[in-house]
Amino acid sequence: MENRREGMYTLGIDLGGTNIAVGLCNEALEMIDKISRPTDRSADADGIVREMADICRELLEKNSLSNEDIEYVGVTAPGTVNPELGMVEYAPNLPFIDYPLERKFKEHLPVGRVLIENDANAAALGEALAGAARGTRSSVMITLGTGVGGGVILGGRIFSGGLNFSGAELGHTVIVKGGRPCGCGRRGCWETYSSATGLINLTKERIEELRRRGVPSRMCEAERVSGRTAFSLSKEGDREAQRVVDEYISYLAIGVTNMINIFQPEVLLIGGGISGEGDYLIEPLRKMVDEQEYTRRNAKRTRILKAELGNDAGIIGAAGLGRQI
Amino acid sequence: MENRREGMYTLGIDLGGTNIAVGLCNEALEMIDKISRPTDRSADADGIVREMADICRELLEKNSLSNEDIEYVGVTAPGTVNPELGMVEYAPNLPFIDYPLERKFKEHLPVGRVLIENDANAAALGEALAGAARGTRSSVMITLGTGVGGGVILGGRIFSGGLNFSGAELGHTVIVKGGRPCGCGRRGCWETYSSATGLINLTKERIEELRRRGVPSRMCEAERVSGRTAFSLSKEGDREAQRVVDEYISYLAIGVTNMINIFQPEVLLIGGGISGEGDYLIEPLRKMVDEQEYTRRNAKRTRILKAELGNDAGIIGAAGLGRQI
Repeated sequence: MENRREGMYTLGIDLGGTNIAVGLCNEALEMIDKISRPTDRSADADGIVREMADICRELLEKNSLSNEDIEYVGVTAPGTVNPELGMVEYAPNLPFIDYPLERKFKEHLPVGRVLIENDANAAALGEALAGAARGTRSSVMITLGTGVGGGVILGGRIFSGGLNFSGAELGHTVIVKGGRPCGCGRRGCWETYSSATGLINLTKERIEELRRRGVPSRMCEAERVSGRTAFSLSKEGDREAQRVVDEYISYLAIGVTNMINIFQPEVLLIGGGISGEGDYLIEPLRKMVDEQEYTRRNAKRTRILKAELGNDAGIIGAAGLGRQI
Repeated sequence: MENRREGMYTLGIDLGGTNIAVGLCNEALEMIDKISRPTDRSADADGIVREMADICRELLEKNSLSNEDIEYVGVTAPGTVNPELGMVEYAPNLPFIDYPLERKFKEHLPVGRVLIENDANAAALGEALAGAARGTRSSVMITLGTGVGGGVILGGRIFSGGLNFSGAELGHTVIVKGGRPCGCGRRGCWETYSSATGLINLTKERIEELRRRGVPSRMCEAERVSGRTAFSLSKEGDREAQRVVDEYISYLAIGVTNMINIFQPEVLLIGGGISGEGDYLIEPLRKMVDEQEYTRRNAKRTRILKAELGNDAGIIGAAGLGRQI
């Protein structure tokens, strides 16, 4: 670690099924430049790694830098990533199975170190190092997207579980015994209520019910129900939409409080698409959590904040993988 | 750490509202001798600390040892313990509030180091160092007693939360939204279903129901319902008692699976009074968890085991507090 030179840079690669995004960061983890390209769906794993290296080279040239200016390259991928072995064991929507990404990448771009990590974990690290949780040693990031993703930072380092490295599967904790069926095979997982999918299902169910009961709501006129339908109509004063939002947040508050009672992090971050609702989501969430938190009698309380880095969290987290101390 | 001499011993003190138990352990954390005394309910904090030191001295004399043979003394107490400051912030059933236990104890027994820790955390450490989880680096211990206690070992060290040190409050995670009221103020906490109290409530509810419906069961003849009623009658072939046991274990399995999905520990231990049911509890629990675990496709699986050390787990964990590496 001590051969780090002044003025060195790191590259962070966020490898996804849709895009490959590469960021160039300085030592303060500020992103100086970024290139994003669609992932070539027809390429095999080697082809994708070659493309990753090509984008890195292009970004370096564009900034008049060479391999030697790079301290390390961090790569994040979805799925099961084994940082110790430098392997991607499985990545949904990508042709990687038990693939030695670290070794292969170095063949295409000779750099000193290549570090790899699961994308949800890297995003949590990005926020902890350079986002809404900067300056803290413990944080939990909840990403409200298609699913409910979790990333946990303990003692300044990524916690990805004792076995398997498949990440802290916070979304796959049951909060309603016997509740909604989940893709993981269980019933009542937090993810089935608090993901965007969960919100859409909740909205659709209420629309059905309102139609049946003949209760008026502008939700019933929505052509296509999305994760925004209830929130936007609620803001416009629709009472039934407000009820859907309240119910959605009540599920979210249960899962968030569970995580606070387990981890007691300094900060709990809400990220992902739904976090775009900002204070309209975060304020009532804080209030509900406040009423049920176990540690509410303690002096030190977990702060609930909106994640800051958005889609760049993964890139910045990847670029910060070597900064875990 | 490197001034540790060959043949040195440690003392572990398990301070509880009922008893003060002190164990003398060798370097292999084998308990060589133990003295247990009822806690003097009329004593103040200083008086209790003096009694703790007196028992330690007696135990040393009995074994022809002196203070110099002791590497350190570990103390565990219930409630909120701050190991960094050596303070007991709050201990239920004991007269300790923001009490500098480490410093005070040293006044009564001059030893090099005094380490303090929450009792549930220490018990988990005891099992990890010298009990059912020995040889592992990550384990979660669930104690099924009056409540549902949790102790988490990550990377060979106690994890007690990022803030407040009040321990990983695993029992205060909601598994049934809107369910049974819990002492913590929430509804549907795991503790309200999987503690001995939860089992008793479940048994009583079923007895009520059976009486109402006129369904025969020997449970209805029980003079006093305890945490053993359903288990013992189930073993004797009572079908309704079996149903209560199955239902109880189904709640337990949900909480256990949640913890496995979050922590992915090498081992998950079941301790506390109800764990005395042994395989009659553990076998069906394993089966139910097996059906819903997120990581079931992974090669490495969490082993679910019965805790081994019983009431000595706290003493041995206390004696092992300096062995966290």
